[in-house]
Amino acid sequence: MSRWTLPPERIPSAWFNVAPHLTTPVQPPLHPATREPVGPDDLAPLFPGPLIEQEMATAPWIDVPGEVLDILRLWRPTPLARAIRLEKALGTPARIYFKDESVSPAGSHKPNTAVPQAFYNAGDGVRRLTTETGAGQWGTALAFACAQFDLECAVYMVRASFEQKPYRRVMMETWGGSVVPSPIDEPDHPGSLGTAISDAVRDCAGRADSHYALGSVLNHVLLHQTVIGLEAREQLTLAGERLPDIVIASCGGGSNLGGIAFPFVPDAGVRLLAVEPASCPTLTQGRFDYDFGDVAGFTPLMAMYTLGHDFVPPSIHAGGLRYHGDSPLISALVRDGRMEAAAYPQGKVFEAAVAFARAEGKVSAPEAAHAVRAVIDEALAAKETGEERVILFNYSGHGFLDLSAYDDHLHGRLIDESA
Amino acid sequence: MSRWTLPPERIPSAWFNVAPHLTTPVQPPLHPATREPVGPDDLAPLFPGPLIEQEMATAPWIDVPGEVLDILRLWRPTPLARAIRLEKALGTPARIYFKDESVSPAGSHKPNTAVPQAFYNAGDGVRRLTTETGAGQWGTALAFACAQFDLECAVYMVRASFEQKPYRRVMMETWGGSVVPSPIDEPDHPGSLGTAISDAVRDCAGRADSHYALGSVLNHVLLHQTVIGLEAREQLTLAGERLPDIVIASCGGGSNLGGIAFPFVPDAGVRLLAVEPASCPTLTQGRFDYDFGDVAGFTPLMAMYTLGHDFVPPSIHAGGLRYHGDSPLISALVRDGRMEAAAYPQGKVFEAAVAFARAEGKVSAPEAAHAVRAVIDEALAAKETGEERVILFNYSGHGFLDLSAYDDHLHGRLIDESA
Repeated sequence: MSRWTLPPERIPSAWFNVAPHLTTPVQPPLHPATREPVGPDDLAPLFPGPLIEQEMATAPWIDVPGEVLDILRLWRPTPLARAIRLEKALGTPARIYFKDESVSPAGSHKPNTAVPQAFYNAGDGVRRLTTETGAGQWGTALAFACAQFDLECAVYMVRASFEQKPYRRVMMETWGGSVVPSPIDEPDHPGSLGTAISDAVRDCAGRADSHYALGSVLNHVLLHQTVIGLEAREQLTLAGERLPDIVIASCGGGSNLGGIAFPFVPDAGVRLLAVEPASCPTLTQGRFDYDFGDVAGFTPLMAMYTLGHDFVPPSIHAGGLRYHGDSPLISALVRDGRMEAAAYPQGKVFEAAVAFARAEGKVSAPEAAHAVRAVIDEALAAKETGEERVILFNYSGHGFLDLSAYDDHLHGRLIDESA
Repeated sequence: MSRWTLPPERIPSAWFNVAPHLTTPVQPPLHPATREPVGPDDLAPLFPGPLIEQEMATAPWIDVPGEVLDILRLWRPTPLARAIRLEKALGTPARIYFKDESVSPAGSHKPNTAVPQAFYNAGDGVRRLTTETGAGQWGTALAFACAQFDLECAVYMVRASFEQKPYRRVMMETWGGSVVPSPIDEPDHPGSLGTAISDAVRDCAGRADSHYALGSVLNHVLLHQTVIGLEAREQLTLAGERLPDIVIASCGGGSNLGGIAFPFVPDAGVRLLAVEPASCPTLTQGRFDYDFGDVAGFTPLMAMYTLGHDFVPPSIHAGGLRYHGDSPLISALVRDGRMEAAAYPQGKVFEAAVAFARAEGKVSAPEAAHAVRAVIDEALAAKETGEERVILFNYSGHGFLDLSAYDDHLHGRLIDESA
């Protein structure tokens, strides 16, 4: 046996809230103007009530609405697979398991939060969501989710990606989303996540029928992703394992990492590892401080690891990992020593991705390939010491729309930029 | 419940041979020069013994080797899903089920035969396989399979696709395949499947360490695909259905159609429907006759529906359905009235694909979208008559590498060429 599925009725019926399990509570976000703690009223123009409650929740479990489960069942529970052929290729005594989040409609873990966000907004009477997207992973997930609840979806897409990588734009449009290159008022500007956030927030602030949706960083987003780790835990038991020795995931804003790792935070013996690009080394080289979530300084200040909100990472292929900050929950776990972090240059990452593709057949998204890199190094360390280590990692998305990155790697055109 | 999985140990352990179930036996292929029936010796330079035996087999079941099962288990059994949200959107009393072959490493049903073909060739001492590919679905599947058995894989890719659609080329290279634009000796020629077959056969004929591999049409290829229908049959029972009223799949050479439909041939009450493009209407407008499998007339003559081996179909997006002929087994079933056929122009096909994507979240390959079109029409017919029809179709592949087709459709640039 090398793959464990669960029947659709076994999707977790409650999300796991990591907040009560932190050694020291997360510091509250601060209002960008007053620098006072942000309250629910400050967030009401952007988010519906239930999401604001989840953002500040202290309860250990939060029920998943039935209407959300109905849609998650289109692809969840996702399979847990054992990478036996990779183990063999490495000659390691480690047992390597991965949670396959690439099977979602959008091809990544992002719909796990897009669906409940669309649901709660629809229930709040909102008719339209605005958001920003870089290469398009988050925008496609939100466009898919909006189609399920008859919501309009307006996506501001970084102009350079809009023009050079049209495929995810086409996916958003296939699901009925409208996609506009950002910045909207400067047609010669290549854009950035910073300009796209500004465009999306400005659009939504000007219209009573619209709210804004975010794909990572915030507490409620990571909460929604915990279905990943909860399912993996149950599937590991089916596979005859007790607990993993280490849980590994890539980290940009922190959502796929939080999703798989948070349910294991209470298990003191389980190591948790965040993997980031060497060119955007937030957790490994950043400082823990209050900083803005966006480049322009419109958002609340959050207590997190940051490279500074004006940090511009080089244009690596793993667009989803190019973020100057990190989820405050992830940051707190790293600061308190409960979670480790490692950084890799992209050449080493693509070497691992090719090895994984040849052994297991799966072409990873560049983001997921960061996790694969760390997994291979852990497995080789286990070989060194002869340990039967159990490794669990999050295969957060496929790379079918990122093949130009493989092309660059295979033909020696990959640039290893570091910060 | 809307999705049924089977555990990895429930992959069918034998392939279903449809030959003994035909009303009249398939006429033998004829040698291109002598026009005498082709024997095993004629095929030995191209294929290993076990595949030649399977090509001519009359036994009802043929065992799947354990080494093949080990690799198929990387993604099989594939899920069977019920398209409840599509049913609701159509307001139909029909129950629509689809077999999801898009979850394979290459994203389509093609690896189901690429893996056993690579296995038998490796067992025969062959070190290298050659093949042709158009847009790249078959070439990616074979490159993946060769990587599993340490075989070299040389793919001759139609030059126009090689230059304009590089993504599947990159996938082949990621798995270690080498990809050469065809025709190799005329760098200004855009190429065609015909030139690519010639290049691949010529390469393999000149080298003792090489064999040739084909991705559709031949009996052994369709045999390997029957795992699809065998699994679907078992999953329908889990879903509480007895048998489908109709089984639908797109048809180019016939491999995904044969795969899902053959196991239902003995069930007289089950309708079987082949769906082809109006611009390449082999089964609906072709004649039943002996014809060459390739444009140049190198291959044996096969008894099949054909538009003539010199027919050049217009350049539609469903590249996998642009074939002048059809599998002899499929052709025999249509000729004998056991299987029906329908043809659609691509505009109607993409309308259906968008409806399916919005309802179920899945972005179909243009080939699979032909099946979706026919499914929607069957479901609407059931609505008309108020029948509780059970529809099963093969979702043969995803469209993540075909999004430019959706772009053309959504922005009014799709051309409806007919033959």
